[in-house]
Amino acid sequence: MTATQPITGTLPEIVRRDQATLLVSGSDRQGLVTDISSVLTDFEANIVSLDQYSDDPLGGNFFQRTVFTVNDFEGKREALEEALDRTVANGLGLEWQLVPSSNLKRVAILASKADHCLLDLLWRQRRGDIPMTVSMVISNHVDVANDVRQFGVPFFHVPASPDGDKSKAEQEILKLLKGNVDLVVLARYMQILSSDLLDEIGAPIINIHHSFLPAFIGAAPYRKAKERGVKLIGATAHYVTADLDEGPIIDQDVVRVTHADTASDLQRRGADVERQVLARAVGWHCQDRVMLNGHETVVFSH
Amino acid sequence: MTATQPITGTLPEIVRRDQATLLVSGSDRQGLVTDISSVLTDFEANIVSLDQYSDDPLGGNFFQRTVFTVNDFEGKREALEEALDRTVANGLGLEWQLVPSSNLKRVAILASKADHCLLDLLWRQRRGDIPMTVSMVISNHVDVANDVRQFGVPFFHVPASPDGDKSKAEQEILKLLKGNVDLVVLARYMQILSSDLLDEIGAPIINIHHSFLPAFIGAAPYRKAKERGVKLIGATAHYVTADLDEGPIIDQDVVRVTHADTASDLQRRGADVERQVLARAVGWHCQDRVMLNGHETVVFSH
Amino acid sequence: MTATQPITGTLPEIVRRDQATLLVSGSDRQGLVTDISSVLTDFEANIVSLDQYSDDPLGGNFFQRTVFTVNDFEGKREALEEALDRTVANGLGLEWQLVPSSNLKRVAILASKADHCLLDLLWRQRRGDIPMTVSMVISNHVDVANDVRQFGVPFFHVPASPDGDKSKAEQEILKLLKGNVDLVVLARYMQILSSDLLDEIGAPIINIHHSFLPAFIGAAPYRKAKERGVKLIGATAHYVTADLDEGPIIDQDVVRVTHADTASDLQRRGADVERQVLARAVGWHCQDRVMLNGHETVVFSH
Amino acid sequence: MTATQPITGTLPEIVRRDQATLLVSGSDRQGLVTDISSVLTDFEANIVSLDQYSDDPLGGNFFQRTVFTVNDFEGKREALEEALDRTVANGLGLEWQLVPSSNLKRVAILASKADHCLLDLLWRQRRGDIPMTVSMVISNHVDVANDVRQFGVPFFHVPASPDGDKSKAEQEILKLLKGNVDLVVLARYMQILSSDLLDEIGAPIINIHHSFLPAFIGAAPYRKAKERGVKLIGATAHYVTADLDEGPIIDQDVVRVTHADTASDLQRRGADVERQVLARAVGWHCQDRVMLNGHETVVFSH
Repeated sequence: MTATQPITGTLPEIVRRDQATLLVSGSDRQGLVTDISSVLTDFEANIVSLDQYSDDPLGGNFFQRTVFTVNDFEGKREALEEALDRTVANGLGLEWQLVPSSNLKRVAILASKADHCLLDLLWRQRRGDIPMTVSMVISNHVDVANDVRQFGVPFFHVPASPDGDKSKAEQEILKLLKGNVDLVVLARYMQILSSDLLDEIGAPIINIHHSFLPAFIGAAPYRKAKERGVKLIGATAHYVTADLDEGPIIDQDVVRVTHADTASDLQRRGADVERQVLARAVGWHCQDRVMLNGHETVVFSH
Repeated sequence: MTATQPITGTLPEIVRRDQATLLVSGSDRQGLVTDISSVLTDFEANIVSLDQYSDDPLGGNFFQRTVFTVNDFEGKREALEEALDRTVANGLGLEWQLVPSSNLKRVAILASKADHCLLDLLWRQRRGDIPMTVSMVISNHVDVANDVRQFGVPFFHVPASPDGDKSKAEQEILKLLKGNVDLVVLARYMQILSSDLLDEIGAPIINIHHSFLPAFIGAAPYRKAKERGVKLIGATAHYVTADLDEGPIIDQDVVRVTHADTASDLQRRGADVERQVLARAVGWHCQDRVMLNGHETVVFSH
Repeated sequence: MTATQPITGTLPEIVRRDQATLLVSGSDRQGLVTDISSVLTDFEANIVSLDQYSDDPLGGNFFQRTVFTVNDFEGKREALEEALDRTVANGLGLEWQLVPSSNLKRVAILASKADHCLLDLLWRQRRGDIPMTVSMVISNHVDVANDVRQFGVPFFHVPASPDGDKSKAEQEILKLLKGNVDLVVLARYMQILSSDLLDEIGAPIINIHHSFLPAFIGAAPYRKAKERGVKLIGATAHYVTADLDEGPIIDQDVVRVTHADTASDLQRRGADVERQVLARAVGWHCQDRVMLNGHETVVFSH
Repeated sequence: MTATQPITGTLPEIVRRDQATLLVSGSDRQGLVTDISSVLTDFEANIVSLDQYSDDPLGGNFFQRTVFTVNDFEGKREALEEALDRTVANGLGLEWQLVPSSNLKRVAILASKADHCLLDLLWRQRRGDIPMTVSMVISNHVDVANDVRQFGVPFFHVPASPDGDKSKAEQEILKLLKGNVDLVVLARYMQILSSDLLDEIGAPIINIHHSFLPAFIGAAPYRKAKERGVKLIGATAHYVTADLDEGPIIDQDVVRVTHADTASDLQRRGADVERQVLARAVGWHCQDRVMLNGHETVVFSH
């Protein structure tokens, strides 16, 4: 199976033609679940799963994710969106988003020389584990070019400018991404993106940081971990914001280490945690399971 | 704080006077979530959390747990129950159960000589971690009597009959339990209860088995684990049915072991897993988070 | 079984009359393992287990822990110590320590109002899980007094001075501890000990910090964890040094949490991690499995 | 980097020219550690790490793994082997094995259609995570051929005979393996090897079973796990013996699942555990960290 083939059989519950996901968020008040569900029921939709969360039952922030099936979804879509605008947006003052399950998110992966997170995502996409289309891989090095192209995925080399001026490389990256992707994944991409670029990309960005945040923020976390003598090392997947390593956390995990593990052992063992955590985070994002609550995430994983 | 005092402050979100949990289950069909939620909304209830699961969106078994608050719950309770009967039971053909959050479940713990699971439950009850009232502890030995009574909990000694006839002891146990408890916990109680007794108790029974089921069913699992040379040992909390160690599993967990762990090391390390798993299972049950789907459980933990 | 009874049967491999542990550390060089083992073999000792570590095989720091049995250990002890002085200290320039397995470490536990770590340690001592004698519990509150005394352990109340002057309370604590204990455990003791007191106690001190260090140093880590939106919370057991929360880490662990866990949920779930991590750290220390390598620990756990 | 290139820099501590591992096992008796170490010290070897285990200090089975460096290892090798024969084999009645660290084990991987375990091993070899040379991949299907060859590794297709007679295919496999490999890895190879083949291969065989053994022995463990309603699923790496799924266990691990995970979810999530567990087991084997104690393994991992 190549990257351009549609995902079939393996994920029938996720990518079904007449299935969609409705995300709603806003200020909590009485009766929201019923009111929102009613809109769907009016269209004879069948709710497949409903997750709901309020950070304070007495007037906090409300989040609901509803997966539903409905006969002839595309035919009814416009009317359903009008109803959502009328009832959910105008009536209840909430934000909503409707995502058909047949739409695979278009993903760009930015990588550097390290291949472990990158290959793991490509493998999972090919296997149908993560419902996404990897549209391109961009790297400031050429090391991973062959590996990427074997998956049928375009590879673009955008080297860092020798004079240290990032703006030219960023313009090139922006041109590649703009309008072409729904998600950008920094799979151990060792360059810091300027806040201008972040603003202009117009798509969410997920980064994997190779430590258990907020411990060991910044560069060389494994070396710092070895110096501090910690007994666990970890990795953190988070949305990228202008504040480095401070974005909303999607997932984290750790692995036990001992005094006998060298800094290079930590790096090797940490790589396994990094790719697991990043794959979970990207998978949840691509299934619209992650919602933002300020600088915190609400993750409706099961 | 003694066992007879009400739980206060520590669990305000669980044991609130005007809060209740509605459990609904039955055959899935279109619109159930909306229909059920509407009943609550008609009473101006505010849904605090809603969990829902269907084992097959196209006509499987449906399960919903809804926690809600409503002003003057006790005043409205009878009318709400009538509405549930009318709409949910008669109208939709589903089973429902309404549990006020102020009702702590009355729990009997049956133990033998080992104290680790027993004490852990008593500590957690005293601390307000598990919303329950431990009404009594019954044991076939007297070893734990002092410890139990220090918590203000009645201890009853029901020794096994010397002639091996269990029926007399079981009659005594039945007399103590009947009508007095909502849940029976076998906290490493080493006696097998007859199916007659199981039938007559009239309350669910949770057992902790000291292995990762279905591995090492029956007696001496740690010895068997050592003999097989496994690298993890575990524990399983399950509802008790007439089939030994075959009841619906509520929770399981494991811990890593090595060749250097002796059978008594396994026992010692396993004890920690046992009490954790049992505490989680009892806690979820007492918060009405566990529903039965045939011989499987649906656990709405978060 | 009460705290004053000797530990029997349950830990025969640890507390055997003719068994001892030899700890050796210093600069690594060729042949150390053989040279050290030879001293023991000369006394017809049988090595039960040998753990060895060097942080750099080419001239780093060397650590060896050897458990051995020898007939009539007490009779041979003086001669063995002379041989260790001659060969290991003077000959090889290493530090050594010889600990008979029959010597249970005398432990003082300092606690505040929270009982989870304290009770867990008292109970593990009673069961024989940790080879120690809890000599006393000191608290600035009286909440845990009854619980402690039921284990047969003396309880001393040393309240904080109302005028905020710690020195009087610390003098009282010092008088209680001085010469009476081999280890001090801060089991969620919420007071910071002055560096003067640390110096004078003359015994190692283990603290449990309720976060995954170095994340969330200082006060209120669960609140900070909730604010940062982390997906794991943890606990860290470390030796206490003058630098708060910077002492050598003995053990750490974490548990998964979600957006739906409130700050009080985090506290409740974290309490389980705290007592597990502290019990492991105290257990390893009491079995002489922890050695210091600068501000890092070498832990010979199996 | 291709499979035929030497592993460099990344694992200097493992594949050093003058480094070797000595494995010794047999009946325990007094002084073994010293006697064995002395042989090495006589050759001016420096012990890098020493692990030792006895399953009963009073006359059980003894196991020792010693990693050492010595100047001009190849020059001294013959004399060292003579000394080991004289002292360790004849003198102490123990078995010994000497493995130079520069010798990478030659590994054949047998696979079927599933690629997750296979690709993970090939990738770890390329990165230098596991010190091995993958000499060939054999499969009864051609699905993975391209992926394998891109790693520079020969791929051989040995289809199952259409008439169900395995002997012809097994003869072909035997011809490929015989004399060419030091280890055979069954990476989700779905065929059962005849005991004749097992005998003739003359190299240890590691299999990954997709359940937590001894639970769910045999075919379709994920389906059985779903039917039983377990809350954890796992994987087990073990040496293959004539008794299916009964061979000595090298490593096991599990992952939490819920009622909401379908059988195909279990399979997808289990795949991650399978590749982790298999990679650990193969890595430990290739570093000579696994010794056999009857039908149990002694694993000197750190």
